[in-house]
Formats: sequence, C-alpha cells, structure tokens
Amino acid sequence: MTGDGKAIAPWEVLDSTYNYRDRWLALRSDTVRLPNGRVLTPFHVIEQPDWVTVIALTRDGSIVLVEEYRHGARQTVIELPSGIHDKPEAPLAAMQRELREETGFASDDWHPLGSFFANAPRLNNRVHCFLALDARKVAEPVLDDGEVLLAHETPLADFLADLQAGRRMLHGFQGGAMWLLHLYAKSSGDKRLAALGT
Amino acid sequence: MTGDGKAIAPWEVLDSTYNYRDRWLALRSDTVRLPNGRVLTPFHVIEQPDWVTVIALTRDGSIVLVEEYRHGARQTVIELPSGIHDKPEAPLAAMQRELREETGFASDDWHPLGSFFANAPRLNNRVHCFLALDARKVAEPVLDDGEVLLAHETPLADFLADLQAGRRMLHGFQGGAMWLLHLYAKSSGDKRLAALGT
Repeated sequence: MTGDGKAIAPWEVLDSTYNYRDRWLALRSDTVRLPNGRVLTPFHVIEQPDWVTVIALTRDGSIVLVEEYRHGARQTVIELPSGIHDKPEAPLAAMQRELREETGFASDDWHPLGSFFANAPRLNNRVHCFLALDARKVAEPVLDDGEVLLAHETPLADFLADLQAGRRMLHGFQGGAMWLLHLYAKSSGDKRLAALGT
Repeated sequence: MTGDGKAIAPWEVLDSTYNYRDRWLALRSDTVRLPNGRVLTPFHVIEQPDWVTVIALTRDGSIVLVEEYRHGARQTVIELPSGIHDKPEAPLAAMQRELREETGFASDDWHPLGSFFANAPRLNNRVHCFLALDARKVAEPVLDDGEVLLAHETPLADFLADLQAGRRMLHGFQGGAMWLLHLYAKSSGDKRLAALGT
C-alpha cells in the first residue's frame, strides 16, 4: 500500500540491540547489510505505537482544532485533534474517543481517509487518518491531568486561507492528512468538501 | 509559523538527560512541569538534523521519484527525493545536491513550498519542501555506498491517480509536501500545476 517497489531488495539484519525502551518508545539500533554488500552500523529505528488524527468539520462549515504546547517543537501550536492508538482498540474507536475527550465533539458520519507510515526510514509506526462530517459538540472536554489543551471551532475557509498564506503550518503527518482529505474530496465529490477538492 | 497558539503556556523543563546520542540522532528524556502543575517524567524528544524533500516535475508532465528500501517500514517504497540537511549548507542547496546525486536531475526553476516541524510533539527537526519545475536529466546518479536506490520518471497524472485510488501512499512528511504543493498550485495559478490545484 505504501509503495510498489519491486526492484530494490530489503536490508539483511545482522544484529539488533535496544539502546532504550520504555512504555513510550524504543530506540532499536540494527547492524544491517545492504544489497550492495555494504554493512551499516548502527541504523536506528524508533519503535512507537500508531497514531490517529481527524479532520472534524461541523455542519456550519467550521473545523475543530486543538491548541497545545508541543515539547519537540518547544512551542504552542494549533493542530488537528490526534492521539495514540493503543491496541487492541481499533483506530477508528481510538480517534472517536480522543475527539470526544479532547474537544467534546462527536459525529455520526466518519470516513477513513487512509493510513501511511509516520516516517518510513526511521519510525515503525503508522498514522490512521479520518474525516468526521457534521461534527457537533455533545459534551465538555474531559482531559487527563497529563493534558493541557484548548479546543477551537474555526471557520474552515479561514483555516485554509491561513494555511495557504503560510500564516499557519501543520506539522508532518497532519499535512499528510490534509493531502488525503484533498484526494478524498476530489474522489467523492461531496459538496461539503468543495473548498478542499477544487 | 507553525501555529498561533497564545493561551497555552509552555512546559517548564526541570531536568534533561540524554539516554543515547551519536551523529545520527539523540534521545533526550526530560522531566517537565505542565501549566497545571503536573510533573511528567520522562518525556522523550528525538533530536535529529532537518530534512529536505522535493517535488520535481519535468517539462513533459512527469514526476521524478525514488525507489528505496526503508528500514523503519521494513519495505521498499516509492518516495519523493529527500535527504538530510547538514548545516551550514542552505536547505535549497542541500536539496539541489541530493536531487542531482540520487536521480541525475537538475532544474533552473526552484520554488520553496514551506517548512514545517517533522513531528511537533516528539521530534525537534523541520522539513523543508521544494518544487522544481522543468526538471531535466543532466547526469547519471552518483550514489554513495550506503545508498541503494532507483530513480523513476513517472507521468504525474498516473502518480496522482495511484495516490487517489490508494494504490500508492506517501509516508508522513511527504504527504505534507504534497499538501503544500496543492496550496501553492492554488495560489500561483501556474498552468503547469493545473492537476494539483484544482
């Protein structure tokens, strides 16, 4: 699904060591042999759980966004609602729960947009992307005490104008989710997505 | 640039430890205090150099792609040409060099599409995205012995149809680059990008 490569052989793993591992992530350092015979050591892979993310649109043309401090970037950013996919819960169920907890929004009209690798060279996890249409606020957010965030309901047209002008920028996989939404809007012809597929 | 968050205060770093560090990446584990007083420990950040990626289009309507085994995903994938941005080289110069080395293609018509955080919660690095128009093959690829890859010239219409049908899927930041290209195509009205901005 991610590619259709056929001519390039995989690397052979000669050795594999965990330099660090806890419940959040593992740093695996492999010794690998390339198809050309070259041995690389170490080659690092970060192992993490999958992620889920959603573009939630309300009936009156707004998008549900989340404002949160993000420590990798060392700044407060505005993002698509997202979360960690803790198996055995299905990705859709995880996203529905996260959207409700973080923002208080729910929807009866969910569409999978696709899944992709978070970063194929370095990470082993996937991102599962969803669209929620006719989203509506059904409750107040319920945050755990490790979360400090604010939910926003912003007119989609304003959000897209901000992105187009570069006044706002989504980080890595969230831009990938918007690209999948664009492809879905073109395919589906759904009139509620006219601003995204044309 | 990444967001415009104002109401959420940053975390306070109480302690910071490197569990692993080499020339490729560092695993930094912080103890942090949230604005609500809660202390989280450890919170991991992966420190890495920036990345660069390019959508290179030829005059006859093809896109330049790269087929490569990616060890995080444990599969061979087809991607946008990409690389690591080793300072002090500017991101554009890094991308021009990588495109030429990996594919043999060059262009005189480069456009920055924007930069975003690779993953704001967990990574500290950025991705710099470019568009190269009227790209042409000027040389054979020059790979170092740690690289095994194949360059492909594929009709853009076929590539977009494959993405739209889900037959091919770009990983995280590469989909984000396609989203920036879509926004650029809409803004610029460049007729060479008509398939991307409408």
